[in-house]
Amino acid sequence: MAQRLIVIGGDAAGMSAASQARRRRGRDDLEIVVFERGHFTSYSACGIPYWISGLVPGPDALIARDPQTFRTTYAMDVRMRHEVTTIDLERREVVARDLEGGGEVRERFDDLMYATGAVPVKPPWADTDADGVFGMQTLDDGAALRLWLDAEPQPRRAVVIGGGYIGVEMAEAMIQRGLSVTLVESGDQPMSTVDPDMGELVAEAMRGLGITIRTGLPVTGLKQRDGRVSAVVTAEGPIPADVVVLGLGVRPNAALAETAGLPIGPTGAIRVDRRMRVAGMPGVWAAGDCVETLHRVSGLPVHVPLGTHANKQGRVAGINIGGGYATFAGVIGTAVTKVCDLEVGRTGLREREASAAGFDFVSVIAESTNRAGYYPGARPMTVKLIAERPSGRLLGAQIVGWSEAAKRIDTLAVALWNGMTVDDMTALDLGYAPPYAPVWDPVLIAARKAVDALAALDR
Amino acid sequence: MAQRLIVIGGDAAGMSAASQARRRRGRDDLEIVVFERGHFTSYSACGIPYWISGLVPGPDALIARDPQTFRTTYAMDVRMRHEVTTIDLERREVVARDLEGGGEVRERFDDLMYATGAVPVKPPWADTDADGVFGMQTLDDGAALRLWLDAEPQPRRAVVIGGGYIGVEMAEAMIQRGLSVTLVESGDQPMSTVDPDMGELVAEAMRGLGITIRTGLPVTGLKQRDGRVSAVVTAEGPIPADVVVLGLGVRPNAALAETAGLPIGPTGAIRVDRRMRVAGMPGVWAAGDCVETLHRVSGLPVHVPLGTHANKQGRVAGINIGGGYATFAGVIGTAVTKVCDLEVGRTGLREREASAAGFDFVSVIAESTNRAGYYPGARPMTVKLIAERPSGRLLGAQIVGWSEAAKRIDTLAVALWNGMTVDDMTALDLGYAPPYAPVWDPVLIAARKAVDALAALDR
Repeated sequence: MAQRLIVIGGDAAGMSAASQARRRRGRDDLEIVVFERGHFTSYSACGIPYWISGLVPGPDALIARDPQTFRTTYAMDVRMRHEVTTIDLERREVVARDLEGGGEVRERFDDLMYATGAVPVKPPWADTDADGVFGMQTLDDGAALRLWLDAEPQPRRAVVIGGGYIGVEMAEAMIQRGLSVTLVESGDQPMSTVDPDMGELVAEAMRGLGITIRTGLPVTGLKQRDGRVSAVVTAEGPIPADVVVLGLGVRPNAALAETAGLPIGPTGAIRVDRRMRVAGMPGVWAAGDCVETLHRVSGLPVHVPLGTHANKQGRVAGINIGGGYATFAGVIGTAVTKVCDLEVGRTGLREREASAAGFDFVSVIAESTNRAGYYPGARPMTVKLIAERPSGRLLGAQIVGWSEAAKRIDTLAVALWNGMTVDDMTALDLGYAPPYAPVWDPVLIAARKAVDALAALDR
Repeated sequence: MAQRLIVIGGDAAGMSAASQARRRRGRDDLEIVVFERGHFTSYSACGIPYWISGLVPGPDALIARDPQTFRTTYAMDVRMRHEVTTIDLERREVVARDLEGGGEVRERFDDLMYATGAVPVKPPWADTDADGVFGMQTLDDGAALRLWLDAEPQPRRAVVIGGGYIGVEMAEAMIQRGLSVTLVESGDQPMSTVDPDMGELVAEAMRGLGITIRTGLPVTGLKQRDGRVSAVVTAEGPIPADVVVLGLGVRPNAALAETAGLPIGPTGAIRVDRRMRVAGMPGVWAAGDCVETLHRVSGLPVHVPLGTHANKQGRVAGINIGGGYATFAGVIGTAVTKVCDLEVGRTGLREREASAAGFDFVSVIAESTNRAGYYPGARPMTVKLIAERPSGRLLGAQIVGWSEAAKRIDTLAVALWNGMTVDDMTALDLGYAPPYAPVWDPVLIAARKAVDALAALDR
């Protein structure tokens, strides 16, 4: 009799795992049952802001593979709109509710893949169910917002609450649609994923686009009129709003796992080992936005909900479920984003994180250009490096610049991944031609500056 | 009494060395005399094609620092249009000829910095002194070509001989100026700096721009009429030409060094150690396009004339002359170029080079896109990886693609520099956002494919 794999959650991590398991084990060897509570499988949540702005047609374009493809090509039993409500690890069974047809099913498993992703952080105030208030996590959220933006009376004033990636990208999307946009952030800066000095460059660019930025301003509630949102309430008074987008971040969707007794780590996410096995529970796997992972620089567990990790982790789990051997090596916090034409990249630790992890370090900021200074389209590029003292090991890097800036963070990410010192980095053989770089690449200029800063301190 | 540094050659390597030496030693400690036979110091030869095409104003924009700046800011005795004709190592003197004023000067030195660069390879046929025939090595060459292209009768038919970087970039420049352009290459492919399969992608793109490409076709001579070039003669008949650009590559300009007894390596360039000291000759230094350097992958000496190396090597020499300690770590053959909108990057060894160096390897080519497939402007990107067998160590990589493709070679260059295996590389934490990459970065897709290819061979 075939063994059975049950997958809870049909997005990046779950479906990567299921696909890899299928590649290694045929249908006679392994049955695969997938429960997904939503309407879609394997879609790009990261693409939603571009669908909202109108840059990308959606939602179909954002779907990598639909349920039917998984059924026919991969021989999986994919059950959409089914929410798993109970995991019984002793009986090795799950109970799932059919959200549309009603009723419950009970299914046994040999292997269980837990891939429920993340859920938006709920604000601490009421009235979030007023019409015109949107989370931005799923394609359904995106579809609802699109309808609201297109319906009469057309919203003109948007308020985005929270200045993380989603908040910043949604602010951009709304301004591109012609709305007036205010971004409200309780902390000191939007784009707190980079250090304040680099974040200020992003804030400046956003203001240049016409986005109003209010920082250090906690939201205390929402106002509504006839069931429609009318304002965001803050300590400094109400901000009128016809549409409100919540970008307060996400947390691991681990409630069901916790109830079932899966171990939860200090980040609130599920603890897994390098093979994506849930610690101490044979045959139980987890991956994606619901697990925590090792940060290779700080050595600490972190929760980094990002599609690229979910895909890699799911693949690792699936290879292992399929009888192979694979491990997930951890993360270094690489991320890139776009704020209209401005590009932002980061990797490793920010200053605050480096301090928290106990490092002594220096920081340098180097101004350069993305192309030879004389080449048309040359634009400023700012590179920040954080290097351990006195070793010179790279701990973190951030880039803010214009065209072709963001992905250069990968150069620094690979250097950091390999434990290079800034001194080593000054020797790197990087590509040079006037359309792509000055003869001293911005990365090399920054490394040289860091070497000088370290030398000055040790003098 | 101050010691004296004499620098032969006032471009990238020589002036980087001189500047670094000055930073560390004041004018009372070190006199610096620079002899430069041309009209310019420290200019970007790589920018000449863009000046020819009209994209960049020239020649001033291409000059990083002029002689007067070096004289006033760096307290150097810079003598333009002076050609050093003799180096007397026993007396520690050089003799230089004043090319304009006439006469000779004789100057003693304590340290000698040899930085004469490279000279164009001379074709084996005559008539290269006909009007309308141009090498493309110096700003003077660029100025002469610009005059010719603007003068009456305006040239309409251009032939570029040689399909290396300069040839390809000059073909692009001429087609952008509206000339009809034929590129003649004696080898099997233009852009032989990448493997034939990747070079064919470049050739296709060039043909798409309207450039006629003739490969496997050695040139046997030129024809002229009334002193003006009229055709390029080949085994398959003459190709009419109003202007001919020679892109036959360059060789180290080491004749004077050889006469003086400096050691010449197997590449025809000067042999130096890691501190840029000429082997066995205390106080004699060399850097830039006239020296050979270690290829970190093959372990062989190579001659790679490129501004980025010249700058780094000159800096290393200057730090050492200044009393500091620095080494040049060698090269891995990273290079990027642009053929209109097409971008090409390479690092490490090509297949032919890997074979010649004795490696057993596999090659894979992975097709992907520069952005998420659904994001506007997503274009094909082809990544080729060459990995040692059975270790999986990355030996070389090539990228051909459209916007934002070329500089991604840096990601692979840093991986290669650090001796990563393709298996290690699949775990890399690279930046992901829809405007910049698919959720599986092209680099990761290629690494996975290489892992699979290695596994299939060892099965």
